[in-house]
Amino acid sequence: MRITKQRAAENRKRVVKEAARLFRERGFDGVGVGELMAAAGLTHGGFYNHFESKDELEGAACRAVFEMSVAKMAAIANIADEAAREAAFGEYRARYVSPEGRDATAASCPMVAFAGDMSRQNEAVREAYASGLGAYLDAFAKASGKPRDEAMRIFASLVGALTLARSVAKTDAELSDEILRVMGSE
Amino acid sequence: MRITKQRAAENRKRVVKEAARLFRERGFDGVGVGELMAAAGLTHGGFYNHFESKDELEGAACRAVFEMSVAKMAAIANIADEAAREAAFGEYRARYVSPEGRDATAASCPMVAFAGDMSRQNEAVREAYASGLGAYLDAFAKASGKPRDEAMRIFASLVGALTLARSVAKTDAELSDEILRVMGSE
Repeated sequence: MRITKQRAAENRKRVVKEAARLFRERGFDGVGVGELMAAAGLTHGGFYNHFESKDELEGAACRAVFEMSVAKMAAIANIADEAAREAAFGEYRARYVSPEGRDATAASCPMVAFAGDMSRQNEAVREAYASGLGAYLDAFAKASGKPRDEAMRIFASLVGALTLARSVAKTDAELSDEILRVMGSE
Repeated sequence: MRITKQRAAENRKRVVKEAARLFRERGFDGVGVGELMAAAGLTHGGFYNHFESKDELEGAACRAVFEMSVAKMAAIANIADEAAREAAFGEYRARYVSPEGRDATAASCPMVAFAGDMSRQNEAVREAYASGLGAYLDAFAKASGKPRDEAMRIFASLVGALTLARSVAKTDAELSDEILRVMGSE
């Protein structure tokens, strides 16, 4: 019995992990339950052992993605040495608007992946998203070492640049690269 | 015969106009052909008199939205008096990140409405979007009176702020307002 429970918990975690990846790549409506279960190496029929609905999984995946992002940003914010913290924050910013950051859609920032669709999502997702964004902005402001207003403006410009660069990556690579480059040269 | 052609052209224009509004509000996949035709006061069956496919209409609607946005920005860029141009550009920026700008999703900026979904769209839409974004950025840089790099950074921050403010408008109105406010206080 104990092994069964443990395995069930592991399976659930694996489904959430695959969902976190695939939802960021293709949107919440772009992936079905069958495909998500298959990606986790499980049968479609087992889904309802773990989740009451796809809505519940969407909420759990959104929460999981934010937990990772907030943890990364909090780790930078908690570096005690100021110069080391500033260097780590600078690296994060540069990576965020790099060509690699643009192309890694499945591993990307939840704000860029989810923000555009948010008003059309279910309540579980919208709540996970809103509390995640709040926590992320707090950590980002602390990590940046700047006043909160200025940190929010910096973050907005990063989100806008990555969103715009991605939106033309396939159709106008030159413009896409230019958008990333001007963000790096500030 | 001449009247029929003229009426056909008017009907087509009306469908494109309704599509431009509804696609911005709900995304390209969020509205069907029947609903679009009904919004234009036409029967579902008449659709294929005007368009070969929904893809074609999506491309035409995306182009129409950008034509309006680029025309507005070009009008500011072409104001001869520098102080008047700067004032008009400042007003545009302020309105862009105002609560009214955030809530008017059906009349909104095509970049904010479409960017997040762009990699998943058909070729007609992606091409209309990419050439529209290029033309818009040219006009925006000229209207701003700033070097192109700086203008692009300003535009990215506006897009990011509006996207983030909209994404939590329904779930965390306070955070949403804060995001808009910091952009206005720069």
